[in-house]
Amino acid sequence: MSTDDTTDTTTDASTDTETNCGAASTPDSEAATTEDSASKCGGSASSSSGSSCGASSSGDEEEVGATVEDFDADPGRLVAVGLGPGQPEGMTARAREALLDAEHIVGYTTYVDLLPEEVREGVDELYDTPMCGEVSRTEEAIDRALAGNDVAIVGSGDPNVYALAGLALEILESKGATASMVEFDVVPGVPAAQSCGARLGAPLVNDTVSISLSDHLTDMPTIESRLHAAAKEGFTISIYNPWSRKRRENFEKCCEILEEHRPADTPVGIVHGAGREDEQVEIVELGELEELGETDLVDMTTTIIVGNEETYVWDDRMVTPRGYESKYDY
Amino acid sequence: MSTDDTTDTTTDASTDTETNCGAASTPDSEAATTEDSASKCGGSASSSSGSSCGASSSGDEEEVGATVEDFDADPGRLVAVGLGPGQPEGMTARAREALLDAEHIVGYTTYVDLLPEEVREGVDELYDTPMCGEVSRTEEAIDRALAGNDVAIVGSGDPNVYALAGLALEILESKGATASMVEFDVVPGVPAAQSCGARLGAPLVNDTVSISLSDHLTDMPTIESRLHAAAKEGFTISIYNPWSRKRRENFEKCCEILEEHRPADTPVGIVHGAGREDEQVEIVELGELEELGETDLVDMTTTIIVGNEETYVWDDRMVTPRGYESKYDY
Repeated sequence: MSTDDTTDTTTDASTDTETNCGAASTPDSEAATTEDSASKCGGSASSSSGSSCGASSSGDEEEVGATVEDFDADPGRLVAVGLGPGQPEGMTARAREALLDAEHIVGYTTYVDLLPEEVREGVDELYDTPMCGEVSRTEEAIDRALAGNDVAIVGSGDPNVYALAGLALEILESKGATASMVEFDVVPGVPAAQSCGARLGAPLVNDTVSISLSDHLTDMPTIESRLHAAAKEGFTISIYNPWSRKRRENFEKCCEILEEHRPADTPVGIVHGAGREDEQVEIVELGELEELGETDLVDMTTTIIVGNEETYVWDDRMVTPRGYESKYDY
Repeated sequence: MSTDDTTDTTTDASTDTETNCGAASTPDSEAATTEDSASKCGGSASSSSGSSCGASSSGDEEEVGATVEDFDADPGRLVAVGLGPGQPEGMTARAREALLDAEHIVGYTTYVDLLPEEVREGVDELYDTPMCGEVSRTEEAIDRALAGNDVAIVGSGDPNVYALAGLALEILESKGATASMVEFDVVPGVPAAQSCGARLGAPLVNDTVSISLSDHLTDMPTIESRLHAAAKEGFTISIYNPWSRKRRENFEKCCEILEEHRPADTPVGIVHGAGREDEQVEIVELGELEELGETDLVDMTTTIIVGNEETYVWDDRMVTPRGYESKYDY
């Protein structure tokens, strides 16, 4: 496959197949085992993994196709951009600039569709895939950069929070490329824990932990051990990827562990679809959490914030005090 | 004191005294024990705690002066806005909007000085104090809101990360007010851990912990116990407030605990003054960390990111893999 014709914008929709991998959209990226390939993003110029911009072929997304030696062009740049909660107003000015500077933007369809009009119109190519294609999407972004394009790969939240900054570096290395070769840079965004914390009030103002319940990439005994330690040590806990049809047991186990260490009336904040049209915010008690796993409130777009022993609910807000009261007479 | 004349912009500089509380500027707010009062922010309209906009008197910042009953006006709004790393380009569009909508902006001098020109010029009053005045500053913001003004209180990073969202709610409650009364809202920002993580590459892409080494509001045995647990359980660790002259021992103790559980060659990222002119970024080994406590690299503007057992350094970047490699052949 030719890789030096980097300005070809022909759209090849022949690989436009969507695969449902058994979960709704996810707030932070995570790879899944099913295969998928390119989808067209409604209305905008869109290319697919069959185009000549990248070097990977569409049939084997879980294997790295091209290595750095397959590219003749001088590499372009690759920047991983965190969009925050997803809507344009949650994005930093620096993220917007990085997107306006990019020739190609690569991302998960849901977030590419939410990009500001100005960004969508200014870019040469938008490449988006439905969820579950994180590895192939990231490789596509890298191949496009190695082929000479300035590429932004986007995701919600922050690229360092269960997301693509690490994957991009891992794949670059596996291709025999380096981060410097594509001037790899990361533009941080507001993580889901902070977006959800803000909606709830002030649940996270002291020492805190983030734990993902997805055992796709971390085994369940490790996750359980971390939950025990976090709950025992008085950390507030942000739970990412709390539930999917394939792993109801992880959520149940998590609730049991938390209840071992914290009272049943510990405040728990649940934010579903933060900043989106279907956003739901609830503050419940720890003892009620497990049964909510079977409702629409808890899915892959939900982040759960578990208070510590000092967290209380006041005027519909969750507050974790830092101890000011003991130091100051106010 | 009259509190209903909320539009008085008289500047009272008589309380313009700066107190150095023994540390440089801090990336996330924290209260300190010394007293201070208002300073003028260079060139802009500035009021002080002696003005008639708020109800607190300037001599007793650590006690709540006015309660909700002292205010006759219909309350205005109070929004806690996270500025991210501090420079305007690190701010979200939503944060900028909140600042443009505010009549009064209250914050620590360093960050107020960094606000975009458009914001500084559009606001009726800027009230800033040097560091260590977090409690008095927050109370001032609340009093101004209770007196009928729309107020934004600003800080770097995110208002939920060792910062003022919780303090604002605690003080509102102590005044007999409620959050709803001032339509209290939080606008999230990019936390220091994410700003620093982005500069280092991808150090935080798996389960992670934030721990502050300041024992001003959390006692040292608790901090030590949390460090042990986090280091044992394979979390990456973001260390906030790592060092001040008053607590060298905390930093030394922290390094000892980390070395008990992790090899001396564990990668550690140090980011001093993220996003500022004096920014310094270094990736070192855990075994070198303790001695760096005595250099300019580590102070209150520094955030330290400690890798886990799997973190490695590649091409000057810190990478914490998520385990993709074991699942995918790339």
